[in-house]
Amino acid sequence: MVNSDGKQITKKAFGWAARDSSGVLSPLHFSRRETGEKDVTFKVLYCGICHTDLHMVKNEWGMSLYPLIPGHEMVGEVIEIGNKVQKLKVGDKVGVGYMVGSCNSCDTCVNDLENYCAKMIPTCSAKYHDGTTTCGGFSDIMVADEHFVVKIPNNLPLDATSPLLCAGITVYSPLKHFGLDKPGMHIGIVGLGGLGHLAVKFAKAMGTKVTVISTSPTKKDEAIEHLGADSFLVSRDQDQMHAAMSTMDGIIDTVSAVHSLLPLIGLLKSQGKLILVGAPDKPLELPVFPLLLGRKIVGGTCIGGMKETQEMIDFAAKHNITSQIEVIPIDYVNTAMERLVKGDVRYRFVVDIGNTLMSSP
Amino acid sequence: MVNSDGKQITKKAFGWAARDSSGVLSPLHFSRRETGEKDVTFKVLYCGICHTDLHMVKNEWGMSLYPLIPGHEMVGEVIEIGNKVQKLKVGDKVGVGYMVGSCNSCDTCVNDLENYCAKMIPTCSAKYHDGTTTCGGFSDIMVADEHFVVKIPNNLPLDATSPLLCAGITVYSPLKHFGLDKPGMHIGIVGLGGLGHLAVKFAKAMGTKVTVISTSPTKKDEAIEHLGADSFLVSRDQDQMHAAMSTMDGIIDTVSAVHSLLPLIGLLKSQGKLILVGAPDKPLELPVFPLLLGRKIVGGTCIGGMKETQEMIDFAAKHNITSQIEVIPIDYVNTAMERLVKGDVRYRFVVDIGNTLMSSP
Repeated sequence: MVNSDGKQITKKAFGWAARDSSGVLSPLHFSRRETGEKDVTFKVLYCGICHTDLHMVKNEWGMSLYPLIPGHEMVGEVIEIGNKVQKLKVGDKVGVGYMVGSCNSCDTCVNDLENYCAKMIPTCSAKYHDGTTTCGGFSDIMVADEHFVVKIPNNLPLDATSPLLCAGITVYSPLKHFGLDKPGMHIGIVGLGGLGHLAVKFAKAMGTKVTVISTSPTKKDEAIEHLGADSFLVSRDQDQMHAAMSTMDGIIDTVSAVHSLLPLIGLLKSQGKLILVGAPDKPLELPVFPLLLGRKIVGGTCIGGMKETQEMIDFAAKHNITSQIEVIPIDYVNTAMERLVKGDVRYRFVVDIGNTLMSSP
Repeated sequence: MVNSDGKQITKKAFGWAARDSSGVLSPLHFSRRETGEKDVTFKVLYCGICHTDLHMVKNEWGMSLYPLIPGHEMVGEVIEIGNKVQKLKVGDKVGVGYMVGSCNSCDTCVNDLENYCAKMIPTCSAKYHDGTTTCGGFSDIMVADEHFVVKIPNNLPLDATSPLLCAGITVYSPLKHFGLDKPGMHIGIVGLGGLGHLAVKFAKAMGTKVTVISTSPTKKDEAIEHLGADSFLVSRDQDQMHAAMSTMDGIIDTVSAVHSLLPLIGLLKSQGKLILVGAPDKPLELPVFPLLLGRKIVGGTCIGGMKETQEMIDFAAKHNITSQIEVIPIDYVNTAMERLVKGDVRYRFVVDIGNTLMSSP
């Protein structure tokens, strides 16, 4: 790769990429930019797999650029920094999540909400400021503007921390923004997957009473005994749901399949808030009367700003919150993607990049 | 009517009532309770007609009790007060809106949100604390607990003020509660009817920039020249709608027909709020992605608490806000109801009770 002055400004990198909408990943030699003055370069050690990776490698949202190196829950160790980097140094443990850039000047950026900037640049398969295509964490090294790099406190294990960079902030942000973090509040968490299990942990650490709402009765033990939820509702059990009506201050709904909002709105107290963080590909039915009669709201959020992401990681470090993971080698990634489609993971795959991503001879 | 001790505790009243789900109104002699110690009795002078009256007289919500005397936008003059009444006196101009009672002890009541109390008692066709059925403002006199009676400042004309008791508070409350009352904000008002035209007036008086969004291009002049809106969007004009995307801080949607939320959500800035105050009888389609990508919310509100209703009336008095009305005699009420079904009124019918409701000999 060559810059506009004709100078070579890249460094060699190696990763696994999808080549087309089959979504099958295979090894790829590619290049990243040299460490710029505000950039941090780090050796990637672990990278989680998010459902978004699945959509992107298969071009299900019609915006994929191939070859596509997925992975936006990456953590590693800094090996080089630019001369204007202020908050990080070589040897620091760091992470990069869903985004690597934004316009830095709009209202949302100025208010630490880069995630809602119209020019936000995703970590994978997007055009960066310099015209290059962004490449994710299924790769040996990463170069990123330090503004989009989070420092990971030393007490957090890197593997189980990587999913916090996307799944963690996705559930932490709505709990904070919508004031659902007050001790004593009753919070519902819909869906017990990669997002949901972290939502339970964060909401409990905030001091709220947590009820998990799931279609699967088999998840009850897991929710209560392992994750610390206070109670469990089987969403198909109308008696259980009826008994819990009007008891919740807020609900974080992590389900991305089309589902009914009416029973969830019914669980809310007057003034309650139903916040969607899963993104069904079809519209959901919104019953209006139940909203009006309780001044309830349905909202949605999408990851979080960088300031809040650092706050989330620091909160996780303080409360020993990490993701429950299954660590896999890079050559298992295609199988992992297939299992992810079926929801067959508790609760997040994390690729051991540092030990298993080897450049072929 | 007789109380539990066998004592007569009623006073004669006269009004117009629907006798069955035909919804046809005709004269009726009935009784109201004697003025209790916390009650205010007033001579009804004017009463607005709300769409809810239409639904109720025809039993469209399946909860009507006949004979049914509608009317919950009533104003009049106090003629008698109970000995524990504190804030009102004989001769005061007063009004009663959608509700006449609540439990007075739940969280919502304690927080001045009687309108969201699970035991809120509507002004028409509901069971009051004493077991009697509530009767609305299409009647010569009204008896109500002073807590549910609003004092009307002298500078407001009574006829054009009556719709504020329901339509006015219905649009004032969400503007205030959701923080859409800040000078310089850009507020959209969807639908220019009884609710919408008042929303324009309130939002303008709060200092916001107001855009009316309507299916009817013919309402543009009315919106801008008579009501003072800053701009007008024809919701079916995709070019206009596209040009206005991401420009609004909030939208008050007064439409009660089934309609699409997607273009309205598109009009909102990041963090914008779409507040529904109309109640379609079928669910609306809620697109989730656009909510998530801008941390937007869709909410609903229903009238307002008594403290806020008094605040709204005082605000209206200060800013000379009244409803645009068509005053009718009581014997025109059945025709008015038919015209209301067709939306044929600018913008509210108000029955001149004081001058036209005469007990037949």
